[in-house]
Amino acid sequence: MADRLAELQDAVEAFVAERDWAQFHSPKNLAMSVAIEAAEIMEHFQWCTGEESYALAPQKRARVANEIGDVLIYLVRLARVLDIDLVDAATAKLAQNREKYPVDKAKGRATKYVDFD
Amino acid sequence: MADRLAELQDAVEAFVAERDWAQFHSPKNLAMSVAIEAAEIMEHFQWCTGEESYALAPQKRARVANEIGDVLIYLVRLARVLDIDLVDAATAKLAQNREKYPVDKAKGRATKYVDFD
Amino acid sequence: MADRLAELQDAVEAFVAERDWAQFHSPKNLAMSVAIEAAEIMEHFQWCTGEESYALAPQKRARVANEIGDVLIYLVRLARVLDIDLVDAATAKLAQNREKYPVDKAKGRATKYVDFD
Amino acid sequence: MADRLAELQDAVEAFVAERDWAQFHSPKNLAMSVAIEAAEIMEHFQWCTGEESYALAPQKRARVANEIGDVLIYLVRLARVLDIDLVDAATAKLAQNREKYPVDKAKGRATKYVDFD
Repeated sequence: MADRLAELQDAVEAFVAERDWAQFHSPKNLAMSVAIEAAEIMEHFQWCTGEESYALAPQKRARVANEIGDVLIYLVRLARVLDIDLVDAATAKLAQNREKYPVDKAKGRATKYVDFD
Repeated sequence: MADRLAELQDAVEAFVAERDWAQFHSPKNLAMSVAIEAAEIMEHFQWCTGEESYALAPQKRARVANEIGDVLIYLVRLARVLDIDLVDAATAKLAQNREKYPVDKAKGRATKYVDFD
Repeated sequence: MADRLAELQDAVEAFVAERDWAQFHSPKNLAMSVAIEAAEIMEHFQWCTGEESYALAPQKRARVANEIGDVLIYLVRLARVLDIDLVDAATAKLAQNREKYPVDKAKGRATKYVDFD
Repeated sequence: MADRLAELQDAVEAFVAERDWAQFHSPKNLAMSVAIEAAEIMEHFQWCTGEESYALAPQKRARVANEIGDVLIYLVRLARVLDIDLVDAATAKLAQNREKYPVDKAKGRATKYVDFD
């Protein structure tokens, strides 16, 4: 079975190469792009409550999926340009988070680790 | 071979469950989290030029990898809470982009499709 | 009575000139800076509910004020570099919003104008 | 002479009151709004270089002014809801920045203060 993220990465690379867009894709510009698309996800949740945000109307849910897709596309591209493995980076961060947020201190609390007693 | 993104998703779910953090993870809050972490990627590229952004010092590159990992973790979690398949969403968006940015119009140009002649 | 925003603008300009920082302040970089600082405001509201966000602890409120100050400083600077009058820009936008959101359609509704019936 | 920012604040308050929108304007939601509008400023600078960003075409410059206006409107509103004086907050932050970035260390350098030798 092929790795799905690796397939997406290949498809993104082909898309960019066909359009000769690598010239615009500095890490700086791609970092901006990730942030811009992330804000577009947020736009759909701007005025609802947290509770309401679980129950999106189908059309809105499709738009959110679209923006989520955009963030992943730019994130994949940014990781490639910097030669960073996306899944390794997240796995390593998760390991750090396990250290910073041990279950006994963090359970059920949204406190930032620097504010732990 | 196991799918690497699926493995990451399972690890993220276990991490959240152990800490009883699902209660804080409304789609609204997770959308904010993706945007906050995306801004933290950007922070590393705030003052450099596009060209300089390719050549990160090793320590800075490691920090950027960390922030990229954070964005992916929250994106994975947001997709799960909304029951959206992350790779499908990006693949579908890429297909839309192929329509909006046909090679003959888009090649070598960073123009937004709404501004095509 | 002197205009308070104009005084702030002068202070920001002096601060930048003394440090010879204008060289880093392209509109592109300043736009990133506004977004980065805006995300830092958001960070303080990441996990609370809307209701809880009204009642900040004094220390948190002071930090939020700090981040709000940062956004205004960069916004002032961006407007100056682009030779845009900040208050005129907001006043003009408010006038557009009055057109897009007439009281009889918008009253008590958080619907985006493009989604009005 | 009336204070221009104070006049804008009054106009924003009237705009919100007429539409009965205060109910949507929790600090959390307004913080998101500032970040969303900040990203919309950035969108105009996504693919250009820093140098190119100084020379906006008139139509683009008008759009940027519009987005800058939006950020200020939401910032004004956020400050009001939290009972923070916007100009005082920025003035206090500027004083802190003078401490963190003394001229002799910061002159001509875009280094973050935590990275000073």
